[in-house]
Amino acid sequence: MKVAVVGATGAVGQTTLKLLDERKFPVSALRAFASERSAGKTVTFKGEQIRVEVLGPAAFKGVEIAFFSAGSAQSSEYAPRAVKAGAMVVDKSSAFRMDPTVPLVVPEINAHAIAGHRGIVACPNCTTIVTVMPLKPLHDVGRLRRVIATSFQAVSGAGVDGVEELRHQTLAWARGEAITPRHFLHQIAFNVIPHIDRFGEGGYTGEELKLVNELRKILELPGLAVSPTTVRVPVFTAHSIAVNAETEVKVTVARAREAFGDFPGLTLWDEPSANRYPMPVTVEGRDDCFVGRIREDLSCDNALNFWVVGDQLRKGAALNGIQIAELLTR
Amino acid sequence: MKVAVVGATGAVGQTTLKLLDERKFPVSALRAFASERSAGKTVTFKGEQIRVEVLGPAAFKGVEIAFFSAGSAQSSEYAPRAVKAGAMVVDKSSAFRMDPTVPLVVPEINAHAIAGHRGIVACPNCTTIVTVMPLKPLHDVGRLRRVIATSFQAVSGAGVDGVEELRHQTLAWARGEAITPRHFLHQIAFNVIPHIDRFGEGGYTGEELKLVNELRKILELPGLAVSPTTVRVPVFTAHSIAVNAETEVKVTVARAREAFGDFPGLTLWDEPSANRYPMPVTVEGRDDCFVGRIREDLSCDNALNFWVVGDQLRKGAALNGIQIAELLTR
Repeated sequence: MKVAVVGATGAVGQTTLKLLDERKFPVSALRAFASERSAGKTVTFKGEQIRVEVLGPAAFKGVEIAFFSAGSAQSSEYAPRAVKAGAMVVDKSSAFRMDPTVPLVVPEINAHAIAGHRGIVACPNCTTIVTVMPLKPLHDVGRLRRVIATSFQAVSGAGVDGVEELRHQTLAWARGEAITPRHFLHQIAFNVIPHIDRFGEGGYTGEELKLVNELRKILELPGLAVSPTTVRVPVFTAHSIAVNAETEVKVTVARAREAFGDFPGLTLWDEPSANRYPMPVTVEGRDDCFVGRIREDLSCDNALNFWVVGDQLRKGAALNGIQIAELLTR
Repeated sequence: MKVAVVGATGAVGQTTLKLLDERKFPVSALRAFASERSAGKTVTFKGEQIRVEVLGPAAFKGVEIAFFSAGSAQSSEYAPRAVKAGAMVVDKSSAFRMDPTVPLVVPEINAHAIAGHRGIVACPNCTTIVTVMPLKPLHDVGRLRRVIATSFQAVSGAGVDGVEELRHQTLAWARGEAITPRHFLHQIAFNVIPHIDRFGEGGYTGEELKLVNELRKILELPGLAVSPTTVRVPVFTAHSIAVNAETEVKVTVARAREAFGDFPGLTLWDEPSANRYPMPVTVEGRDDCFVGRIREDLSCDNALNFWVVGDQLRKGAALNGIQIAELLTR
């Protein structure tokens, strides 16, 4: 397959290149695109240096599949052009996610939604993906009624600049220097910021509203009650979400463990007696999402509390995108 | 007043000494106690060096008020002896909090509970104090029905050793060295750990069960439905809690803002348009608890989401203890 990666120098683009190799995606030719400030740089794919190109009118000639992770503006402009040029697009931006003509896919959950795509398939927001992975098997056994989710999101979700910001601020602290925020609105080292994306309707942030709308679309539950709080934490690359999920039918902890453990892409790490539960540093670099701290809610008969962690760059972004491409090219 | 501080070299003890001075508590004599490993050290009070003593049989002779923050075992053993010697005890440990004969007090909320004390008054757990501060005014206007709380807890909650652990691990990272956990079970730098205190009933941790039981006792709502998740984050000294609170009577955001803003010890920082909301780094060193991100719950008619942050060492511990002492000696 002739493959293009748009946003190839970014955090998700870099992970996409690594995973295309790891998963032996059948790449016959690879083109790497990025913004003008990366023009002339190279990226590495299977040990080879590939020159980074700037997107232009003929960018997608001959390309069969294009991975977009360069932001909404780039996707809005260039994804339709790539489709017109004959490519299938896997879009990691928020540009088309809520477009009713565009499937929003987590392959383990709604692979069927890919049928009837018109060239673009959208990949959900990273926090949505990690949150929805345990919600689907729970829904299958108990029918979801209400979800209250509180996220602990890594800086990689804000791209390479976010990662560099945490690194620089922490090194400045180690040298005894003052910390000056550049990329985030506030200091992120040794802090938590309850604000991701712009503020919107009802005092919710864009990140919070994405979680509500995308969960509903992926699970095909347009009326699902979702209450979101999204928070940035000084962690490099894995997102954690504390979830309270209420179901129509009571699901015991034992039944939930079974359902989670059986679900593809989800691994159960829930052994309190061994102090074992997922954490960002133990999940980073892994493909699966990991779930633990499963407890019956003390405050509601038909609800469970649990804790799910996923690598934001892998299942939260690049891996999910490549899994979509694998479906598209099957 | 003749004052004793037990656990004077600890994080809470140190802050107690600082605040006794700041708040001009009428101290005529001060004795500082700590464990044997601190014997012979000195602590500073009002610029004077005070020699640290080890607790012994005659430790509390002549002491009128004693602040205990040396852990449950020390409190269980020595607080009753201090009372017997004629002192009033403000206990920051969990030893007596759920004892029905011991008042558990947050002065802004249940100062009346102090009446009838038998020598010991307990100070709630730090996370409970920060969480209950906005819950009380919300209860007063809407009657609380259910609380779902997810905490982001600073390392100071684990004492000086916790603070040193985050500092050392971060400095090791900055030098490119491996990180070895010593005090916490797992790496805390660049990580979040969904486990504080020992695991207990139903898969909940001691910290989570404390939140449930202490909220009920302070608010005098023995049947309050509480669903807790407590998480350690790499932050130095302020705790943040994401709260979802359901009330019997609908409380609008405007009404909640008014109620929060009017409550003593609570400050409203809720201006999304100015990117203003409380965060650990902006709250550290302040006496009040700060509340923001107030939103109507999208998933429930009579519920609000909000975010509250308090300095764990001040209102979460030492300050609340001194406020109790001020009530006791009024």
